[in-house]
Amino acid sequence: MSSPRPALPSPLRVVNLGLEGFAQDLAAAGVPVVQVDWRPPAGGDPALAGLLARLDARREQIDRANDAAIGRVVDGEPWLVDCVPAGDALGLPARVVLHAGPPLDWARACEPMRAAILCAIRYEGWAADDDAARGLVERGEVHLEPCHHRGAVGPMTGLITRSMPVFVVENRRHGNRAFATINEGLGKVLRFGANDETVVARLHWLAADAGPLLGAALRQAGGIDLRALMAQALRMGDEMHQRNVAASSLLARALMAPLARAEGATPMLERLASFLAGNDQFFLNVAMAAGKAVADPAAGIAKSTLVTVMARNGTDFGIRVSGLDDRWFTAPVLMPLGLYFPGFVADDANPDLGDSTIVETIGLGGGAMAASPAVARFVGAGGVAEAMRVTEEMREIVLAEHPHFRIPALDERGTPVGIDVRRVVETGITPLINTGIAGRKAGTGQIGAGVVRAPLACFVLALEALAETLAP
Amino acid sequence: MSSPRPALPSPLRVVNLGLEGFAQDLAAAGVPVVQVDWRPPAGGDPALAGLLARLDARREQIDRANDAAIGRVVDGEPWLVDCVPAGDALGLPARVVLHAGPPLDWARACEPMRAAILCAIRYEGWAADDDAARGLVERGEVHLEPCHHRGAVGPMTGLITRSMPVFVVENRRHGNRAFATINEGLGKVLRFGANDETVVARLHWLAADAGPLLGAALRQAGGIDLRALMAQALRMGDEMHQRNVAASSLLARALMAPLARAEGATPMLERLASFLAGNDQFFLNVAMAAGKAVADPAAGIAKSTLVTVMARNGTDFGIRVSGLDDRWFTAPVLMPLGLYFPGFVADDANPDLGDSTIVETIGLGGGAMAASPAVARFVGAGGVAEAMRVTEEMREIVLAEHPHFRIPALDERGTPVGIDVRRVVETGITPLINTGIAGRKAGTGQIGAGVVRAPLACFVLALEALAETLAP
Repeated sequence: MSSPRPALPSPLRVVNLGLEGFAQDLAAAGVPVVQVDWRPPAGGDPALAGLLARLDARREQIDRANDAAIGRVVDGEPWLVDCVPAGDALGLPARVVLHAGPPLDWARACEPMRAAILCAIRYEGWAADDDAARGLVERGEVHLEPCHHRGAVGPMTGLITRSMPVFVVENRRHGNRAFATINEGLGKVLRFGANDETVVARLHWLAADAGPLLGAALRQAGGIDLRALMAQALRMGDEMHQRNVAASSLLARALMAPLARAEGATPMLERLASFLAGNDQFFLNVAMAAGKAVADPAAGIAKSTLVTVMARNGTDFGIRVSGLDDRWFTAPVLMPLGLYFPGFVADDANPDLGDSTIVETIGLGGGAMAASPAVARFVGAGGVAEAMRVTEEMREIVLAEHPHFRIPALDERGTPVGIDVRRVVETGITPLINTGIAGRKAGTGQIGAGVVRAPLACFVLALEALAETLAP
Repeated sequence: MSSPRPALPSPLRVVNLGLEGFAQDLAAAGVPVVQVDWRPPAGGDPALAGLLARLDARREQIDRANDAAIGRVVDGEPWLVDCVPAGDALGLPARVVLHAGPPLDWARACEPMRAAILCAIRYEGWAADDDAARGLVERGEVHLEPCHHRGAVGPMTGLITRSMPVFVVENRRHGNRAFATINEGLGKVLRFGANDETVVARLHWLAADAGPLLGAALRQAGGIDLRALMAQALRMGDEMHQRNVAASSLLARALMAPLARAEGATPMLERLASFLAGNDQFFLNVAMAAGKAVADPAAGIAKSTLVTVMARNGTDFGIRVSGLDDRWFTAPVLMPLGLYFPGFVADDANPDLGDSTIVETIGLGGGAMAASPAVARFVGAGGVAEAMRVTEEMREIVLAEHPHFRIPALDERGTPVGIDVRRVVETGITPLINTGIAGRKAGTGQIGAGVVRAPLACFVLALEALAETLAP
């Protein structure tokens, strides 16, 4: 006699794997059910599952091989070292056209690919028109070959012929090199299958002027560290396929001085270009003047409680309020909290200093921390959560969200802008300010960077003055 | 007789506002309690609460005034238009030193402020050394004044004297102008109270060379739209107080061609500089060559299932796998899904095309979408959640997280890198690729941008070949 089946636990609780129908039936019957989105490996294909099982039997060997392979990808040290004609760089002979992707027969090529191939043949002067060019390809007198077979890569149609200049990237970790053409820009360009005279004219300019000059500049510079530049660009919103604005700007800035040097420009231009390339905070002063320019017209509006100036002189923190003309309301500055350069500690710091808080006055700086998680390491625990928290907190004391300064990480919500004296006093939340930290001893210079609060007292004084202006 | 008090509801549930002690007592007694962090307005100060109440009585008038004031802040159109000596721009006479913050008596100035003031006096030649300079200040023969009183702003000590060049920002919406000095860079600089000969020498260079050249370039350029530039930089991780790397790079790129023109550099340099400034995708080809350079050394490792190449020729999608040498595994390309330029629709699109997928092969592009929420609008609902979801999904099919390519929005977690043929076949998840879209008719060029999947079939073919290499 078989033993009785054990009773189901009560109340019944179910975890359902895979097909949702079972879960739906149970849920309809009032049984709590957790649905797990499980699918059988390889979509349930038995042949593929068998192949996977065969590979699984060699798992350790494969893992070791993969560790070696991925190790070589992530330890690569790509440097942009030169720009030279493809004929030289790739050993590319006449009458060879490189194209993107795997090998391709002319008969199977899509229209933009065909248009680009014929245009490249015209550009090289191997044929006078598309018909003649097509004849060369069809008779095998022009040979098609993937870029990848020559260590090169091309965007879209990816065409490379011998006179086109290519960038040379050297992997300094492993000693190998790879190549790509100069990006042609937007609009009608060869890589998208455009083929008119403007396309050909641009290709000639790239070969005659741009390529040689870029090559000379890169050799002058001794190469540019692309891993560092790409890591930085990734931090700046580029994924480097559809968006390259950060990487392109960083590269342009890095190339300015070498280009000036290579082209024999004046030493003045070259030195200024080097100065621009070496100063990540160059824009701060421009942002400040922009802040002053946009805040000033908001001053002098009777009854307005908007803060139009916040500024520190190292002794006092002062604010001005729109409805209170040019009056200053001051309180002693506070000490910034921050991170210090090696060799310095908090005791070396000067109290809060500078007009740069005009940036916070117009909806940037501290209140825009959510756009800049890297900066949040100066405050509290740091990271994304802290950055979001700071921006959220500043929303408590402002009048608006900025319609032009929007933050992708907040799904395009605007930065908090327009500090309201009433809200600061009411909530006790004071503006948070991102700032550099000066040494308190004369002659020291910058010793760190951090955050500081505006002192509440100057907002209280302004509030009192506002109440007076409203007196009957 | 009073009516009986209604009984407390049972079970008792409590929301406690303010002082946590009550909530703690109730919680200790087993009563469910929600604690609300409430504080009385103005920290409970009765005088301040009274002031706030007085302002509240005029709420409508204040709101109208504030709407006008904040409107003027957010509609500002700051343009960087010139760089000229402060004497000219601010009408600044000799023996006046502008400083940051509210008005400041010498007697109350902090050390870095004093050091900078004396250094500025030496720089201007009004005194030969610090002692003589201090005498001038103490006798009132040099006058101190806030930058803000002259429409200017200065970072940290914020010093401005007449011969220093200042940037001129014009608010084209309201016609006013504001001013700030040129940022001196890092290290020993006047704004942080450094005062040695290197500081003075740099100030002389800024006045003699950098300022005039920047001014000439800005006049040449007809000004630079700072609101657009700042909005872009905010999207690139700058909050523009402590972090200005994006804004500085964007500005440097924008200044390259005008600087070359102003300095009479060769037309070749000027045209190349314009080309660099006008092409946000300039870096794509460089990223691709970098991708090829770092992927190539991972090829040819026996038994490795790592994908080392993904590439499209407009007809076929091809991959190569480390353990399978140079063999191509191909399948027909798929159609990208995306957004189209005005005048084009999905029917005009060519199938997937280009070697640019090398970028996805090394851990950028589609898999790095979380770094680039703006790009996620091309896929599904778009925005931050979609961007995060794509990066999460790609983690399912890769071997590693990139140790150098890290994403601030993920608290510095690395991008997914190293596509594993086994994982693709097992999960049925294929690599997501960000891509441009070409018109399918010859000569059209680019018509949009979007996303596309790699076809599963080429991974299946590769898996079969891998299983063969493992056959006993």
